[in-house]
Amino acid sequence: MDLSVEAIQQHIDQKTKPPGSLGQLEEIAARLCRVLETLEPKILKPVMFVIAGDHGIAAEGVSAYPQAVTGQMVANIVQGGAAINALSRAAGMEVVVVDAGVATSLEGITGQAPLLHRKIAKGTANVAEAPAMKAAEVETCLALGSELVRDARSDGSNTIGLGEMGIANTSSASLLLSALLGVPIEELVGRGTGLDDEGLARKRNVLSRAMERHGVPDDPMEIAATYGGLEIVTMSGAMAEAARNRMIVLVDGFIATAAFALAERIEPMTREVAIFGHASAEAGHTKALERLGVRPLLDLGLRLGEGTGAALALPIVRAAASFVSEMASFADAGVDGAESEPPNKA
Amino acid sequence: MDLSVEAIQQHIDQKTKPPGSLGQLEEIAARLCRVLETLEPKILKPVMFVIAGDHGIAAEGVSAYPQAVTGQMVANIVQGGAAINALSRAAGMEVVVVDAGVATSLEGITGQAPLLHRKIAKGTANVAEAPAMKAAEVETCLALGSELVRDARSDGSNTIGLGEMGIANTSSASLLLSALLGVPIEELVGRGTGLDDEGLARKRNVLSRAMERHGVPDDPMEIAATYGGLEIVTMSGAMAEAARNRMIVLVDGFIATAAFALAERIEPMTREVAIFGHASAEAGHTKALERLGVRPLLDLGLRLGEGTGAALALPIVRAAASFVSEMASFADAGVDGAESEPPNKA
Repeated sequence: MDLSVEAIQQHIDQKTKPPGSLGQLEEIAARLCRVLETLEPKILKPVMFVIAGDHGIAAEGVSAYPQAVTGQMVANIVQGGAAINALSRAAGMEVVVVDAGVATSLEGITGQAPLLHRKIAKGTANVAEAPAMKAAEVETCLALGSELVRDARSDGSNTIGLGEMGIANTSSASLLLSALLGVPIEELVGRGTGLDDEGLARKRNVLSRAMERHGVPDDPMEIAATYGGLEIVTMSGAMAEAARNRMIVLVDGFIATAAFALAERIEPMTREVAIFGHASAEAGHTKALERLGVRPLLDLGLRLGEGTGAALALPIVRAAASFVSEMASFADAGVDGAESEPPNKA
Repeated sequence: MDLSVEAIQQHIDQKTKPPGSLGQLEEIAARLCRVLETLEPKILKPVMFVIAGDHGIAAEGVSAYPQAVTGQMVANIVQGGAAINALSRAAGMEVVVVDAGVATSLEGITGQAPLLHRKIAKGTANVAEAPAMKAAEVETCLALGSELVRDARSDGSNTIGLGEMGIANTSSASLLLSALLGVPIEELVGRGTGLDDEGLARKRNVLSRAMERHGVPDDPMEIAATYGGLEIVTMSGAMAEAARNRMIVLVDGFIATAAFALAERIEPMTREVAIFGHASAEAGHTKALERLGVRPLLDLGLRLGEGTGAALALPIVRAAASFVSEMASFADAGVDGAESEPPNKA
């Protein structure tokens, strides 16, 4: 079967619709054909991984919520009561929760969604004072992400979503994006879950000082270790592994975009498999997307995380798979194409 | 049950997420609660009506496709091979096709989707030369739209989508929108299914002359009769009836927006029940949406019609229903809210 870019485009252009009239859906459809290596792509057993981790920088007052909320929200997700549960259910995605580094103990929590106890550390170090992670922790996170994706693939999945939970993780994501994309940190700092003006000024100040203290290492692994995010680096590992396995990755918002920026440095094919779900209302996300040169599917003013923007985007991706797999061609349906000459009205 | 705007907002704000963090999804959820009169809204048996009709103005060369394509595409939709079939299937919507005024005979066409033979006329008159419809035809269209919606409601549906098929119907929609919204016709003319520059110039010229010839009647019924669209006026009738029955209406793109502008003049509650699915790539749609003061859910560069943008938006609406119906509250889940005072870092 010819699966060249041209052959796929020709296949799409034979469908009974004006050429290009399905807009961005056509680009997604073409990508599904390329990545899944078929002209009849199907989304199979999509899994939403919600990776959780804490951040030492929370001690600096950079979030509107106390650190204990990370563990509490993990319990809420496991019990099925969070936004990501409702949205994944609506989208037909399974939710799998992973403790990659929550500060509090999550033993004994049970509910609707599986919780994988893979705590690598009890949160990161406070990056305002020291590098967030050890080099070995970065390796362990990447390996954990790979393992999650390989398991999903063994279960028959070809599509994963990546969401997260971690109080103060917009701080880590801002630092990572600044270091990885070369965007000044000030342009990447936002209100997260809802900082007031004073909190935002404090966050800006804390993050600027952290950047000054640590600088920008050349090596992406060293950037990951410095600016952290046990859950973020695990997400990067999952994305890179998905790319190696030709699986579709639904990228959520600001945090997931930071994970993507790292994953792409590890495995350039990540760009080909990644579909950006939405533009977050978090200031800085638009800047990061622009710098990456990617265009997300949705722009609904979300700023929640957990994978919500990725779950919302899945039905759009599924619709792209449906149209390219199921629509009739002009020839099959006996429909006339566009007129090369307009009707002559002399 | 208190279903005031304030009570609904309070219900949403108790969900385990930062206030406002689900963006536009929260507005949709609040609307679902108001319209369906419940704090646990569900989308029930959604039906996509694809209403078909022909346009006499097609003889002026204002479309890239010949008029015969209307009937051919209706057959394709009935047989399940069109974009709206694939997208409705993906969204879990039933497709019902209605011949409100196709020029060619559709007798004998059968397939997966029901086809209702309700031809009111064999297309409209050429509005470049005469009013498109008779006053009695407008009444018949509105009654047909009402009947479709009442039948759907009897079958247990609380949500309808409205799509269309009709070669040259962007011309009729442009004229209707210009007359109903007071926007100059030049700002509402676009390439439709794919006119080239010469075709676009011809279309602009034809529509400007039609507006000059007929002017802008005060009475919306007279505007409908003058500028037509058997399928468009039927869509308006369906929207107004849905509003009277507190049903959710998914509005597709440019043509459906013209139908909405008429429906709102007939029944002002239409605005409350209407959810605009997407911003079409058809030039003029953005202008019309702006003038109406509404914000659509999606912006994917679609310009296909048939209801495709409405079908794509349904999963987003369903996600809004899911989160407001299913998410835990902070109290239920034992999750701390935002801190009124930031952690003190003296």
